[in-house]
Amino acid sequence: MAAVSLSVSTVKPLGDRVFVKVSEAEEKTAGGIILPDNAKEKPQVGEIVSVGNGKLNEKGERQPMEVQVGNKVLYSKYAGTDIKLGGDDYVLLSEKDILAVVS
Amino acid sequence: MAAVSLSVSTVKPLGDRVFVKVSEAEEKTAGGIILPDNAKEKPQVGEIVSVGNGKLNEKGERQPMEVQVGNKVLYSKYAGTDIKLGGDDYVLLSEKDILAVVS
Amino acid sequence: MAAVSLSVSTVKPLGDRVFVKVSEAEEKTAGGIILPDNAKEKPQVGEIVSVGNGKLNEKGERQPMEVQVGNKVLYSKYAGTDIKLGGDDYVLLSEKDILAVVS
Amino acid sequence: MAAVSLSVSTVKPLGDRVFVKVSEAEEKTAGGIILPDNAKEKPQVGEIVSVGNGKLNEKGERQPMEVQVGNKVLYSKYAGTDIKLGGDDYVLLSEKDILAVVS
Amino acid sequence: MAAVSLSVSTVKPLGDRVFVKVSEAEEKTAGGIILPDNAKEKPQVGEIVSVGNGKLNEKGERQPMEVQVGNKVLYSKYAGTDIKLGGDDYVLLSEKDILAVVS
Amino acid sequence: MAAVSLSVSTVKPLGDRVFVKVSEAEEKTAGGIILPDNAKEKPQVGEIVSVGNGKLNEKGERQPMEVQVGNKVLYSKYAGTDIKLGGDDYVLLSEKDILAVVS
Amino acid sequence: MAAVSLSVSTVKPLGDRVFVKVSEAEEKTAGGIILPDNAKEKPQVGEIVSVGNGKLNEKGERQPMEVQVGNKVLYSKYAGTDIKLGGDDYVLLSEKDILAVVS
Repeated sequence: MAAVSLSVSTVKPLGDRVFVKVSEAEEKTAGGIILPDNAKEKPQVGEIVSVGNGKLNEKGERQPMEVQVGNKVLYSKYAGTDIKLGGDDYVLLSEKDILAVVS
Repeated sequence: MAAVSLSVSTVKPLGDRVFVKVSEAEEKTAGGIILPDNAKEKPQVGEIVSVGNGKLNEKGERQPMEVQVGNKVLYSKYAGTDIKLGGDDYVLLSEKDILAVVS
Repeated sequence: MAAVSLSVSTVKPLGDRVFVKVSEAEEKTAGGIILPDNAKEKPQVGEIVSVGNGKLNEKGERQPMEVQVGNKVLYSKYAGTDIKLGGDDYVLLSEKDILAVVS
Repeated sequence: MAAVSLSVSTVKPLGDRVFVKVSEAEEKTAGGIILPDNAKEKPQVGEIVSVGNGKLNEKGERQPMEVQVGNKVLYSKYAGTDIKLGGDDYVLLSEKDILAVVS
Repeated sequence: MAAVSLSVSTVKPLGDRVFVKVSEAEEKTAGGIILPDNAKEKPQVGEIVSVGNGKLNEKGERQPMEVQVGNKVLYSKYAGTDIKLGGDDYVLLSEKDILAVVS
Repeated sequence: MAAVSLSVSTVKPLGDRVFVKVSEAEEKTAGGIILPDNAKEKPQVGEIVSVGNGKLNEKGERQPMEVQVGNKVLYSKYAGTDIKLGGDDYVLLSEKDILAVVS
Repeated sequence: MAAVSLSVSTVKPLGDRVFVKVSEAEEKTAGGIILPDNAKEKPQVGEIVSVGNGKLNEKGERQPMEVQVGNKVLYSKYAGTDIKLGGDDYVLLSEKDILAVVS
């Protein structure tokens, strides 16, 4: 069985999906930087590595994506499909599962 | 793994979502101010810190948001995603989970 | 944490929602007025205190509301979100959960 | 708490709902009239007392109702909300839960 | 309580519903006629006695019915509402639950 | 109760349904023909005997069918309604439950 | 019962479906090629062997497919229908279950 070679730069999401490198959230405050150590409070964050062409609407036109490569994003826990590449965690998400962009 | 820095001012909700700072409800009556102490009666209230650009409709146009930054809102219990920042509670909600604006 | 002050006059429902003061149903008959004392037979009734601007349709237009402030209404049991203010019971309902207007 | 007075003539259904006085089904045959005495075979029948203005479609127009006041109808078991008034049984139904008109 | 008189000729289905007299399926083969005696293999068949005016689409137009009075039909098991009249079995079905017409 | 006579040629599917004679799958390989003997690997295959006129869309037009009489098809396990006629197995399927045509 | 002969070249997916030959994922890194040996981390990958004509929209037009024959794809676990042909594993998938193309 021929194998399919995966590397981060070769993954191009379909439709309204995005490919996100999972990060850890830290919080910048006056007193410095804090990492939440309570799993329940841990927001899911990451950086977008590649984006799809957008969803096709009923008219056959692609809906523009609201996010772009490089955006740091907060996303729904349990959403998407996890992939491990080069020891790092990635997730393939639908844009509707992205809650917010972190600038 | 590079961390994503979160602070209140950097969170920009996507689509029809809003970023809300959770408050406690108090009631103004002739006899003064009362805080409901019964969890069951406690309405979920908060103040909107940032709003998304609105949902994209089938024609590729954004639906205008009915709420804006600064609005105090009543929202559905169990709706949205909770985030803790600087010791305060925040919630990322879809506009359809906001029941009413409190002026 | 700053508190949000609630009073009946400050609650403005969003979308197609209405804010209803819960009442008790009585029945006017030739023999006088009867209050149903059987919980199962008790219709959910109330008076509308404030109404939303209507639901946004796909064209970005608000659908007109069929009910208005002052309407006495029969509504679905279990529908909506209960709120207690000044010792009275209120409910925030979607218009589609209102079954009938009682004139 | 001010009570809401209910009487049959004051109930005006909303949207595509109808207000139906529950009846018992009898069957006219050559051999006379038979009442089904088997609960499982008992069709839900009634007479329409008042009708809503019809459902609002996406264009903001009301869909005309197919039934009218005085129609005798067969309706889905378990559909709608039961109300007892003056010792009689009534039901508030959506028109889509009416299976047939009995002329 | 006034009763509603039911007889086969007075039942007029609403929307896209049909009123069907339940039959038994037999099979015509070279060797004669066989009745399936295995419940699991028994197709649900019947003859249409009356039809509705068709479903209303979003434009307020009735969708034409594909079946008509007199059609013999195969329909989904468990679909519809059963009614017994004059000792015979009838079923009120939505047209979408009719699988095929048997000519 | 009058019976409805069924034979293969008299079954005309409604809407987007097709009437399929169930077959067994065999595999043509260099080494000859193999029948999968493992139930889990057994694809559901059959030959279309008759087709419906297509589904009615919102405009009242029939959507053309993608399959036709004589097509050999692979279909979803558990989809459709099984019928036995003349000792053979048939299935009434919606076109959307057909996965592929086998030429 | 006549059998239906299956071989890879004769399977033509319907609608927005694709026929995919299942592969194993390997990862190209500076240090060579790694095969994930942890089932949970194993992405579902394969190569598209044939594609459908696209889904029919409400206007009766086919929506163009975003993928084509030869594309290597990442797809949702549990999606689609598995088929074994010539000792190899294949899967019939809807295009919406394809997460990304791997170039």
